[in-house]
Amino acid sequence: MVARDKIYEGKAKILYKADNDNEIIQYFKDDTTAFNNQKMEVLDSKGVLNNAISAHIYTELSKHNIANSFIQKLNEREQLHKKVDIIPLEVIVRNYSAGSFAKMFKMDEGGKIPTLVELCLKDDNLGDPLISPNHAYCFNIATPEQIKFIEGQALKINNILTDIFKNIGIKLVDFKIEFGLDNQGNVILADEISPDSCRLWDVDTDEKLDKDRFRRNLGNVVESYKQIANRLGITI
Amino acid sequence: MVARDKIYEGKAKILYKADNDNEIIQYFKDDTTAFNNQKMEVLDSKGVLNNAISAHIYTELSKHNIANSFIQKLNEREQLHKKVDIIPLEVIVRNYSAGSFAKMFKMDEGGKIPTLVELCLKDDNLGDPLISPNHAYCFNIATPEQIKFIEGQALKINNILTDIFKNIGIKLVDFKIEFGLDNQGNVILADEISPDSCRLWDVDTDEKLDKDRFRRNLGNVVESYKQIANRLGITI
Repeated sequence: MVARDKIYEGKAKILYKADNDNEIIQYFKDDTTAFNNQKMEVLDSKGVLNNAISAHIYTELSKHNIANSFIQKLNEREQLHKKVDIIPLEVIVRNYSAGSFAKMFKMDEGGKIPTLVELCLKDDNLGDPLISPNHAYCFNIATPEQIKFIEGQALKINNILTDIFKNIGIKLVDFKIEFGLDNQGNVILADEISPDSCRLWDVDTDEKLDKDRFRRNLGNVVESYKQIANRLGITI
Repeated sequence: MVARDKIYEGKAKILYKADNDNEIIQYFKDDTTAFNNQKMEVLDSKGVLNNAISAHIYTELSKHNIANSFIQKLNEREQLHKKVDIIPLEVIVRNYSAGSFAKMFKMDEGGKIPTLVELCLKDDNLGDPLISPNHAYCFNIATPEQIKFIEGQALKINNILTDIFKNIGIKLVDFKIEFGLDNQGNVILADEISPDSCRLWDVDTDEKLDKDRFRRNLGNVVESYKQIANRLGITI
């Protein structure tokens, strides 16, 4: 790897400057964190897997005309992306009850729900709280038009991802995505989509093949990510 | 008081059957609760004051053509209302940072914010969590058209109440309202509006003249409610 200027280091990725000022390099670390950094581990080759899986998914989304920041996979740990200003919202799409949703509404995990888009404020200091669109307007984070567009894109992406995973025997329980503004002010999908950011259950056994294996100490985290990559036909 | 058939007993009010099946009687208790019933006290004559204050405010709202369930004050503890099916949402309008909002976003209390409408799911078992409109649709609590109407009414009510309180030297920090469906399926304002459901600060001293005096053990709860009634020109 060539020495590069670091722009930002996050929990699971590092962003580096690219040759072109309108682009950045996303480097996938093996660091794995949960519960707002309270749980942390380095899982050998997790970054390699997430890089490959996310590149694969973004390529599929591009084929379906979902505007996004992904340009190309550069090597086993790096991707080239359009530079965006990230909108500080975690956009969550839920098809089945799980995680914070199940906890908040005291529901069992795994029950089918009408597809739901949630917004959380991306702010570690506040614990990424669930908010409503009105909060986003109040804090000047996004306009009503942008939120409407984001929610519409999230549902389109959900349909595409649900199909992709259904074809490999996986139930897409929920996932988190982020959006950013490109240099022309367009809202586009950004960041990553991987087993770090999705709940993926085997359709027959309900076995979890995602970051919940790490959060809940279920073991075989990397093996599960590898299984997702294999089923998607990705050769690492 | 004539013996009546009780329909429902809540934390601060009892609902009784009225002679007309399309109406109910709201009885204001002196019981005062906070933090989901964890704090509870009987405050002598609080119910009398809230009955009078809420009747006064609803009468003003009616003059401004805000459709609501209030028909008339019957006696010192009772009001006649149209019977509605309450929509299980606490609709909160905020003009200044305070309470759960200030806590959630780690902000000081009292700062001016762009007026914000929040929705909480009215469910004691879940602790009345903040939700977004999408949750209301997911749980079939209200339609997008109903939520749009409710938010619009909430903002209109906020303008009217802000003026009413401004005229008596009170800053309307925030308030909670509820809506219900009447027997024709119209969404109308229901329940009460009183110092139990509003944050009311003296405009000069920022002295709290509302239920926060009870929540925070500031003393003189009933005296403060009485002051609100007096300033509104209500004779008890």
